[in-house]
Amino acid sequence: MSIYQHIKEQAYLANMQLPKLNLVLFTFGNVSAADREKNVFAIKPSGVPYEELTADKMVIVDFDGNTIEGDLRPSSDTKTHAVLYKNWPEIGGIVHTHSTFATAWAQAQKPIPIFGTTHADHLTVDIPCAPPMGDDMIKGNYEYETGFQIINHFKSLGLSYKEVEMILVGNHAPFTWAKTAEKAVYNSAVLEAVAHMALLTQQINPQAPRLQDSLIEKHYERKHGSNAYYGQE
Amino acid sequence: MSIYQHIKEQAYLANMQLPKLNLVLFTFGNVSAADREKNVFAIKPSGVPYEELTADKMVIVDFDGNTIEGDLRPSSDTKTHAVLYKNWPEIGGIVHTHSTFATAWAQAQKPIPIFGTTHADHLTVDIPCAPPMGDDMIKGNYEYETGFQIINHFKSLGLSYKEVEMILVGNHAPFTWAKTAEKAVYNSAVLEAVAHMALLTQQINPQAPRLQDSLIEKHYERKHGSNAYYGQE
Amino acid sequence: MSIYQHIKEQAYLANMQLPKLNLVLFTFGNVSAADREKNVFAIKPSGVPYEELTADKMVIVDFDGNTIEGDLRPSSDTKTHAVLYKNWPEIGGIVHTHSTFATAWAQAQKPIPIFGTTHADHLTVDIPCAPPMGDDMIKGNYEYETGFQIINHFKSLGLSYKEVEMILVGNHAPFTWAKTAEKAVYNSAVLEAVAHMALLTQQINPQAPRLQDSLIEKHYERKHGSNAYYGQE
Amino acid sequence: MSIYQHIKEQAYLANMQLPKLNLVLFTFGNVSAADREKNVFAIKPSGVPYEELTADKMVIVDFDGNTIEGDLRPSSDTKTHAVLYKNWPEIGGIVHTHSTFATAWAQAQKPIPIFGTTHADHLTVDIPCAPPMGDDMIKGNYEYETGFQIINHFKSLGLSYKEVEMILVGNHAPFTWAKTAEKAVYNSAVLEAVAHMALLTQQINPQAPRLQDSLIEKHYERKHGSNAYYGQE
Repeated sequence: MSIYQHIKEQAYLANMQLPKLNLVLFTFGNVSAADREKNVFAIKPSGVPYEELTADKMVIVDFDGNTIEGDLRPSSDTKTHAVLYKNWPEIGGIVHTHSTFATAWAQAQKPIPIFGTTHADHLTVDIPCAPPMGDDMIKGNYEYETGFQIINHFKSLGLSYKEVEMILVGNHAPFTWAKTAEKAVYNSAVLEAVAHMALLTQQINPQAPRLQDSLIEKHYERKHGSNAYYGQE
Repeated sequence: MSIYQHIKEQAYLANMQLPKLNLVLFTFGNVSAADREKNVFAIKPSGVPYEELTADKMVIVDFDGNTIEGDLRPSSDTKTHAVLYKNWPEIGGIVHTHSTFATAWAQAQKPIPIFGTTHADHLTVDIPCAPPMGDDMIKGNYEYETGFQIINHFKSLGLSYKEVEMILVGNHAPFTWAKTAEKAVYNSAVLEAVAHMALLTQQINPQAPRLQDSLIEKHYERKHGSNAYYGQE
Repeated sequence: MSIYQHIKEQAYLANMQLPKLNLVLFTFGNVSAADREKNVFAIKPSGVPYEELTADKMVIVDFDGNTIEGDLRPSSDTKTHAVLYKNWPEIGGIVHTHSTFATAWAQAQKPIPIFGTTHADHLTVDIPCAPPMGDDMIKGNYEYETGFQIINHFKSLGLSYKEVEMILVGNHAPFTWAKTAEKAVYNSAVLEAVAHMALLTQQINPQAPRLQDSLIEKHYERKHGSNAYYGQE
Repeated sequence: MSIYQHIKEQAYLANMQLPKLNLVLFTFGNVSAADREKNVFAIKPSGVPYEELTADKMVIVDFDGNTIEGDLRPSSDTKTHAVLYKNWPEIGGIVHTHSTFATAWAQAQKPIPIFGTTHADHLTVDIPCAPPMGDDMIKGNYEYETGFQIINHFKSLGLSYKEVEMILVGNHAPFTWAKTAEKAVYNSAVLEAVAHMALLTQQINPQAPRLQDSLIEKHYERKHGSNAYYGQE
């Protein structure tokens, strides 16, 4: 058995959640799960249908994007995952999808305004949208640069990847992350639901105001603060 | 067996209807069922996935919000339920969801206009939308104040909770209620359908008129009046 | 066995198609099937959940709306069905739903423009929308008058119920019909699909033109004309 | 066994994918699979419900539209398929649907702008929309002319059918093709997803810009170029 079996299992199970949650069409998505002691992650192979996936088909890659174990070619977005793992030491799982509503906001190149408590239960700011990359970055090491585009946009907005676990990449699609792959998938589903409701909110009321600060804080704190009272201990 | 087993069962069954009716993502919703003789209600524990719910996991709470029986922490919205039960003596079940279309109207801070007979079959007025609370209420006993925000908005509009069994809380999401938890879930599904159709109606015709009074009365009376002829005796 | 068993079976099977085709929420719809020799029709009982329906529960009603056989109260829309059967001698089945997109057009009080061949495969004109009834008609024998509202709107537009098998009733919802109950259900599903696509068409292009006459004729003729070549003999 | 059994199987399996992918209502779609050595294709019979389809019911037709084998009448769109096979020698499968969002763009008579990488992963240009045909073409050999309308629109735009495997026919609906029937169905599902996201993108941002050229090239090349690195060898 592979010494990476535990993250292969995690990545496999998390990948299989994407079609169940209606977040992917065909193979348009990928999840990875990292082992922070071994400095590697397990990621879906490229273009393999979900029905044919198994834990053993997951590819093991290091944080520089080199394949360490596995017979299949890893996801074409592997280098983006590698860059995020290398630069953000506390994340353990990453998800990329082309889910319908989140991708529409990415294509519109608009951050998703914080309109309600569903959003505030998960993050206290608008969901950021990184601008499309410059031609040089695209023509160069594209997926590698996509990782830096995400990191640099977080820096420019003064955001912490530990508090905001999702981003839209302009003209492209969303990425989410978390301490575990399972939680990163959860974040992708939340993002899709929030993206859908935000679009509808603007259609009902083009002047809909952003949430007031006190309500943003309250909802975030009750779920994530030191005195959180959502969920079980 | 618990002396509250009957309301635990009712609350459990009603909670399990929410995912079946596509009214919740993950754990974003909760249903409670009250016993009016014992002055307590059974409510979903906080953050427990629907697949892991059982009747025994329901938490028993009194109308002041104190836990009476149960090992798990009750829903974070428990105090809102308690306030409504305490102040509205004839309700036996309450539902809170973040269902997509109803939540979009809440985020837009707009009541849902009565555009057709689907709406009029259930209530004779626009579905009310309580304004977001003031900062003081939010920073104080938030969920408790949410209950009063609902009750006060009904008072300010001169509405009876016995005739109008649903409300949107601005920036947040819907609450519905009824004499039983099962009927309150029914009301949540009706609200979501009416919210969807009202949005589409305005998209097709931004000048769509509200329903004429005679039709509002007719549809409501045939279902709820003293000579109702909808359904079986 | 009832001498009406054949239409009870037809009505039962046709009613059970409504939830499968996502055309109803709860009990918000009804189908009837007529026997033209006995001058009666079988219709769904009022307010009975689809899971509890059986052929034996269908109610037999004559074309004046009198119950002939059955223990349950017939659908509250029964008199509308009776009026249509009495006045339109060649129809054998009627469907009423509150399906989402068709009802939105009815609430918007707009006929559905003929934008494409999906529409033209089934009828050659905009899907008509009868105006809401006057207060007198509503306060009187409401469901009976609904039938006449439909018939009179067809007369005023010079339409034949044999060629156009569907209508929207303003502020209310759609009715469809056909030679059989099964075909009337098919028409309800087609109407819902056409209603959805027409709304999207106007959103993409507010100046989208109606279909040109030659294409309307071609598509209708290839499916319904004397030289039709759609389907099997 | 028929000497065409292999393409009957291919056409059957590909047709059965349409309802699974939610691309058809009732029988509103058809797939064909060609044998390039025998110069024939297998196509769905007209108007037969998917539940009743079998491989043996597929009809064998030559590239001039003549039925070669089969008891049933072929799809009413058969001549359009024949013209495309005859004029485009490298395609092996064709799909026609009335899928909701792609059909809405066709009815709106608008090409689908290339807004993101989901689109660019599959083609480098806006998805073309052929104008409605003239009255003469419609009144003549309609389905035959539909084929030429598609081919001529590709010529007028300077597009290659090998690089762009999908088109909208104005006022009508989409056609897609590929080297195999299975891949042509894949293209229909991609088109529907892209059509949905493009509509949402314009609703969020009416000024949403088309994708920059470098990103279009990058995404297409990584999936289809000589150094493609998407999928397995």
